Formats: sequence, C-alpha cells, structure tokens
Amino acid sequence: MPHFADRLNTAIKKKQSVVCVGLDPRLDLIPGFIKKKMLAAHKDVFSAAAEAILEFNKGIIDAVCDLVPIVKPQIAFYEQYGHEGIRAYEETLVYARKKGLLTIADVKRNDIGSTAKAYAKAFLGKVDVFGGRKVFSFDADAVTVNPYLGWDGIKPFVEEARKFGKGIFVLVKTSNPSSGDLQDLQTKDKKTVYEIMAHHLESWGADCLGESGYSFVGAVVGATFPQQAAVLRKLMPRSIFLVPGYGAQGATAKDVRPCFNKDGLGAIVNSSRGIIYAWKNSDTYTEKDYAQAAREAAIKMNKELGNR
Amino acid sequence: MPHFADRLNTAIKKKQSVVCVGLDPRLDLIPGFIKKKMLAAHKDVFSAAAEAILEFNKGIIDAVCDLVPIVKPQIAFYEQYGHEGIRAYEETLVYARKKGLLTIADVKRNDIGSTAKAYAKAFLGKVDVFGGRKVFSFDADAVTVNPYLGWDGIKPFVEEARKFGKGIFVLVKTSNPSSGDLQDLQTKDKKTVYEIMAHHLESWGADCLGESGYSFVGAVVGATFPQQAAVLRKLMPRSIFLVPGYGAQGATAKDVRPCFNKDGLGAIVNSSRGIIYAWKNSDTYTEKDYAQAAREAAIKMNKELGNR
Repeated sequence: MPHFADRLNTAIKKKQSVVCVGLDPRLDLIPGFIKKKMLAAHKDVFSAAAEAILEFNKGIIDAVCDLVPIVKPQIAFYEQYGHEGIRAYEETLVYARKKGLLTIADVKRNDIGSTAKAYAKAFLGKVDVFGGRKVFSFDADAVTVNPYLGWDGIKPFVEEARKFGKGIFVLVKTSNPSSGDLQDLQTKDKKTVYEIMAHHLESWGADCLGESGYSFVGAVVGATFPQQAAVLRKLMPRSIFLVPGYGAQGATAKDVRPCFNKDGLGAIVNSSRGIIYAWKNSDTYTEKDYAQAAREAAIKMNKELGNR
Repeated sequence: MPHFADRLNTAIKKKQSVVCVGLDPRLDLIPGFIKKKMLAAHKDVFSAAAEAILEFNKGIIDAVCDLVPIVKPQIAFYEQYGHEGIRAYEETLVYARKKGLLTIADVKRNDIGSTAKAYAKAFLGKVDVFGGRKVFSFDADAVTVNPYLGWDGIKPFVEEARKFGKGIFVLVKTSNPSSGDLQDLQTKDKKTVYEIMAHHLESWGADCLGESGYSFVGAVVGATFPQQAAVLRKLMPRSIFLVPGYGAQGATAKDVRPCFNKDGLGAIVNSSRGIIYAWKNSDTYTEKDYAQAAREAAIKMNKELGNR
C-alpha cells in the first residue's frame, strides 16, 4: 500500500476537499424511521441500535463519498452498544472503503508498549491468530493516538503504520475547553506541554515522509485554538493536522486557516454534527432527507474551506 | 450500589489480599489444548480466538476468585479480535462478577466531554437505547482513564461512577520506561506533570469519599517508580492506587510499599503475566495445569505483599 500521506493528498486533490466527515452516531439524533425499522426487525436492543447506526452511516457515506476524501467514525458511540456496536463499527469501515473513502479510526488508544502493540495491530496492522497466521482486523487507514505514556506507547503504532501504508494522528492540542489543564502547562524551558509534544512528534515522524513531503505521523490540533495552531504549524511543518472543532464546537473557516501550509495542504478539517445531523437545523429537509441534507452541508463546508 | 472504595476495601479485608489479577490473554501464550478445541469448534478464526480467550479466562477466574479481590481485563487483547473479542470481554466481566470478583475495565479511554460521556456510560453507567430507556452495557466496577484532555474528559466518568457506585483510576505516573517523556516534565513552578496531575486528582476526587475514607477517584501509579510513588502517596492520601509493573515488569514487594498508606490500604497491585502464565515458568506444571499454576502464583504474591 502506498504511503498514507500520499494517498490522503491524492484524494484531497482529486475531490478538491479537505473535509473529514465525523461519523458520530447518536441514537437520539438518528431519524425515527430508521430506528422504527430496526426495532421491528431485532429483538435485542443493542442489535437494533447497531443496525440503526449502520444504516444511518451508509446513507451518509453514500451522500458524501464523491465530495470528501476521508471519514472518521468515533468509536465511543459504537462501543456503547458492546460487541454489536463494534460490529457496526467494523462494517462502517468496510463500507466507507468500498465507497472510495479513506478512514480514520478515532479511538484515541494508548498504553504501555506491549499493549499498545496489540492496539496498533488491531486498528492498523494484522493480528496474530493461530499457528503464526496474521490477518487484518479493523484495517483502518489511520488511527488517533493519545501521547500521555510517551514514546514507547507511540512507537508500535508508527511501526504498524509504516508496514502497512497507514497513518497516525497524535493528540497535541485538543479542541475541548479544558484541554489547557495539562496541555497548556508551562515547563521550566518556557515551552508549553503541547509545544514539547510537537517537538517529540516532529522527531518521531522525521523518517516517515512520503513523496508528497508529508509524514504519516500527524497531529490532532483543535480548530478552537487558532493561535496555538499557528505555532504548531511552524513546529511540525511536515505533519498533517487532523482538525476537530469546526461548526458545532464553534470554529470557523478563518479559525482553521493557520492549520494549513502555504501549499493549501497539511490539514483535514473534521465536522461531525454539522454534517451528519444537518437535517435537524434545516427548514427544507425532514428526517427522510437526512442524507441529502448531509450532502448539502458537505458541499457548503467544501466551499467555506475552498479559499484557504 | 455502595461506594466503590468501600466495596473494594471490604473485599481486600475479606480475602486478605491486595492483588489484582490482570487478564491479558495473548493467543500465543494460551495453552495449546484450549486453542485446538476452539479451532475445531469454530470456522471463523476470530470466533475461535475469542472462545479460547474466554475459556482460558474462566479457568484463571475459577482458580483465583477466592484469593483476590479484583481482576483487570486489558481490553486491547480482546479488541484485537473485533466484535468477537469484545463479546469475550463482556462475558469475562460477567463471569468474574458471578464468581464474586470486582472488575476494572482497563481501557484507558478518554476524549472531549460529549464523547467521554459515551465511554463513561458504556463502561460504568447505562447507555441510551430507544424511547428514553437506559440499560447497562459493559457494567464494570471501575475503569482506567487517560487525563491528557483535562477535566472535561474526566468529569463524565466521575459523574457515572458517582451515580452507580463505580470507580475510576486516572493515569498519573505509568510503569513504562518512557513514561517520563511527558509525565516527568518539570513545569515552571518546579513541579512535574505527574505531580500536577496528582493535585488535580486530589481536587477532582475531594467530594467522592466513601465511609472507609477513600475516594472512588483513584490513580494509576507504576510500581517501577517507587520514589515517585512515595511523593504521590502524600499528594493523594485518599486515592486508591492501581499499581502496575509488579513481576514481569520488574518491580518487587519492596518497590510497591510506598504506594500503601499506614493502614495497609490505599493500593491494589496488578500482576498479569506473572500469574496467568505462571505455568510457562514452572518445572512442576504443564499447560494442562495452567489454572493451578496461576492459583499458586497468586498465593505466593499474596504472601509477598502480606507484610506491607
């Protein structure tokens, strides 16, 4: 498989879009007609929930797959429903790929080295089965990773990504209000924790560059902190930023501009609620048209980010 | 449900043990006779792997359930096998509870507030199904949580824990070699990041005390760093420490002593490989006796930690 950053940049240019659609299915926001159908068909409520999630996702994927390069299912919303939810997660990844989309497993996993290896194999590489045989499990194109445990919790993800043409996005400066509790701490060298994480990332990803000049070791940088994003862009020129916080969390096209390099690349901007539940804020569309509303919202976001 | 710390302390006293058995099933270390049986019974390799894991776990649980208060299945080793693995994880939690054990879902989850809420409901509380109905999903007694995103990523776990008599263990100083990359950074106030996390934890858990005087907001503190553990014990006198790193990772009974308060409480010490794969390092036992070997290892560890 070619290098992840090259695959992503090719898809960005082909689709003329830097939008990542976040697939965060919340049962209370999924159209009633889908829920009714699945409740009638499945006795077990978790199966019904999982099937409703999957059908909803397929509608969204069909509606946006020609418009955006990548989708990002957030696993918490699936994991809620136990193994049935995880089955829906697996099938969502497969369906998105079939429709020509790249996928980020937004799982924010991390642990000590030997355990991180298991996560890395699960989401990016191949897992051990029997008698030395290895097979793909989730097989996403990229994964989000938490850096609290340091390099030995990151390294296994880098290794699996390198082997299989995949990517990782390490949390650096997150979009949430209290991200500063830890990330903004000033160290004795007058740098913040997020700046130090950026220095680490730049060195961890130094030998991970593709032909497009970008690394497969990317960073999560919240759109809600544009000043910090500008600093981080300079510290990690070759990392692709996964930028959450657009739309529902308050950030605008202007706010995400510092996340991009001058070549117009170097970042993908995620929107979840603003796209997948667009029909909720629409006067034109009812729940039956949720996919069409999502399509329109993705077109609008592409336009907003076109001149970056 | 009574307060988590009270339930844990009662179990510690009843069983005269502070040992937590880590259920980290690695397929290559599971006895061959279990794998053969499951491979013969299941066509799908992930189903066979999941069933092998579950049978192995049940043997361990049966062997140690009267000896230790709590077990900690590490989800990475299950998640590897997708939804089949997660089913084995769910059934392991149910089986452990049936055998009178408390459970820690070692998942190290975290995310921004609304997503953290989904994780918290999944592992500790009740998840939303249809028409306002809520049901338990994983229903563990406690969960491990990563603090990189700050308070709004922790708060939902505290809320669900409070509602349902559950507990959380927040990563503070982990046992792995590179834990210092981030956790040991010196801030401008001449404190380390792990000390600052300890201050946060002490305040987050201040109104979470049970009758035994301990909080349901605990901390993960690696046994491999005894000096740091002594500092953290003073900073968080009312937090229960979940202490990894014993045995296979190199820490001894002497190393974990600073994790305890003078009352002999305040910590549980995890061992995974040293107990569940004890037969591998035994001259007496073959793979058929893996459960008996685990029982003996747990008795030995209880003795080692008896005089703390």
